[in-house]
Amino acid sequence: MTRAHNFSAGPAVLPLSVIEQLSAALPEFQGSGMGLMELSHRSAIFDAVHRGAEERLRRVMGIPEDYKVLFLQGGASLQFHMTALNLLQPNESADFIVTGTWSNKAVKEAKRVAGGRIAWDGKDTQYSTLPDAVQIDPNAAYAAYTTNNTIYGTQFKVRPNVGSVPLVADMSSDICSGPVDVGAHQLIYAGAQKNLGPSGVTAVILSPWAMNKSPGDLPPMLDYKLQVEKRGMFNTPNTFGIYALERVLAWVEELGGLTAMAERNRGKAEALYGAIDSTDFWTGHAATNVRSSMNVTFRSPSPELDSKFVAAADAAGLCGLKGHRSVGGLRASIYNACGQESVDALVAFMADFEAANG
Amino acid sequence: MTRAHNFSAGPAVLPLSVIEQLSAALPEFQGSGMGLMELSHRSAIFDAVHRGAEERLRRVMGIPEDYKVLFLQGGASLQFHMTALNLLQPNESADFIVTGTWSNKAVKEAKRVAGGRIAWDGKDTQYSTLPDAVQIDPNAAYAAYTTNNTIYGTQFKVRPNVGSVPLVADMSSDICSGPVDVGAHQLIYAGAQKNLGPSGVTAVILSPWAMNKSPGDLPPMLDYKLQVEKRGMFNTPNTFGIYALERVLAWVEELGGLTAMAERNRGKAEALYGAIDSTDFWTGHAATNVRSSMNVTFRSPSPELDSKFVAAADAAGLCGLKGHRSVGGLRASIYNACGQESVDALVAFMADFEAANG
Repeated sequence: MTRAHNFSAGPAVLPLSVIEQLSAALPEFQGSGMGLMELSHRSAIFDAVHRGAEERLRRVMGIPEDYKVLFLQGGASLQFHMTALNLLQPNESADFIVTGTWSNKAVKEAKRVAGGRIAWDGKDTQYSTLPDAVQIDPNAAYAAYTTNNTIYGTQFKVRPNVGSVPLVADMSSDICSGPVDVGAHQLIYAGAQKNLGPSGVTAVILSPWAMNKSPGDLPPMLDYKLQVEKRGMFNTPNTFGIYALERVLAWVEELGGLTAMAERNRGKAEALYGAIDSTDFWTGHAATNVRSSMNVTFRSPSPELDSKFVAAADAAGLCGLKGHRSVGGLRASIYNACGQESVDALVAFMADFEAANG
Repeated sequence: MTRAHNFSAGPAVLPLSVIEQLSAALPEFQGSGMGLMELSHRSAIFDAVHRGAEERLRRVMGIPEDYKVLFLQGGASLQFHMTALNLLQPNESADFIVTGTWSNKAVKEAKRVAGGRIAWDGKDTQYSTLPDAVQIDPNAAYAAYTTNNTIYGTQFKVRPNVGSVPLVADMSSDICSGPVDVGAHQLIYAGAQKNLGPSGVTAVILSPWAMNKSPGDLPPMLDYKLQVEKRGMFNTPNTFGIYALERVLAWVEELGGLTAMAERNRGKAEALYGAIDSTDFWTGHAATNVRSSMNVTFRSPSPELDSKFVAAADAAGLCGLKGHRSVGGLRASIYNACGQESVDALVAFMADFEAANG
């Protein structure tokens, strides 16, 4: 078995030690005589896994005790709808900081249910910038932002100041990449497939405000209130995905938690942005002050060279470097599980490529 | 590694050969240098898996060419809502054959969106019976039934005659257990976690009628029309679950397809119902003419003996035999992947238990 350097944007690289534990759990789990995927979601053994995943996320992120944690299905895209459905009354409107594709989709769902207003839009700079300050309507039901934009490679370094308006965050692409003040948010959600595990699980963190705002009596699978009452088990959850997430969080804790993750991610990002900035051959997409530590977007002097680079890198065992179709160029996703050695290999490959093509 | 005899109702036992393939795929998949869970859902290698899963389901079930196949998230419970949302206009109503918990939940979602009428209800017999004939409103937008009731252990042996009203089926607990006329249905859905794979994937099969009936411009994750257009990839699907499903279907094909599955399941069911009927100690729950070949519900002379049986069986490596809380007693789920040897072990254990406690 040879493992490549995997820079995919998600599903993405996972820690090999976690993968080995998952592999071992499939035929037989913890002496139960049954494999991980074959356990009833209501069995004591899976219940311990499920509660363990919740406890680890609470501990790792410092989630306030009165907040609720769910592991649902459907990704952030279903949360765009559920957030609006649960948190907006028909006569209300939410404010959105639009930093790319995902926040655009979120505002569309708010408008479908009630009202949605774009408080700031990065489209004029092709989403390469983030706002220094943003004017939020003080009467907005909530203000929503995406902490990290996977496609354009931007990341909020400081939480946007929305005054006393309840704050909602889509953290799909940088959850658990560093410390965050969960208590400053009323709702956080994140698809697991970048920093938390495989695709098919969505972590949802709800404040008491979010719980109270939900009117109840919504379609059960879309009802925060009911899902909290059922601990995310109105029906069968993605049991394999929840165990994988629990193991990824155990790995995060073993490495020292979110402070250590931030340090690890800072080292990788500095090495890669350093390589981009060290020569005129490479150009970064995101404005330097909002560069993401998770998704590094850049380009070579031409689309032709970009394509050549992607193919040559892939052949050399550096995979997933093609930029998203909506922005083009190159993208290296360097989530928590991406090691410094992968970034070092990429930096060396970039230097060789420039020498041969510069 | 010792594997028990697993009679769980779902998530349920999977073929060991499939589990071994999944285990092997986690660290490195098909020479890609990346593990199964770490592949982009838009990569060529995962696309082949995804298309392979669809092709196998089409071939195994004999799905008409003009039908569409999706692998979504959220289980049958989300389909209860999506079916109503997509197939009911505000002034329309659907008819439901209520054979237990799941169809009751489905009718509730139809009523939430538009209209839902209970055309037949098995509650007076504690859902131990199914209708010989049912009066469907000829003006109903569609008629819905559950092919197999997991909790009460009933299974339609003949498709209900609904005249020219479009037919919708929840096949979660007996999909691919035997041949079925897909073309006689306008919509079929099934959570994977009983006969198709792990939890977290839902197979949805749509006729041209269902596609045309969907109004479009619904919340994207809930919109059949849009999901078909995006091949179920409006966002990241459960990639691990889709591969698992593809491998389970390969196993079904290797064993001879659905005719062979029906034969295999008939042998197991006959052995187990034969044991129940051979003595007065055991009593079956479902009426004999509608007994499920997937979920065998029965009881001993008392709730105390039922509990004793479950504990003793579990200690002897026969797991998951407790009846659902809403019906009590005992239940042995003997899905496709449950082997004849597991049923034989259960039958022998039942005889010993009766001899010691009868």
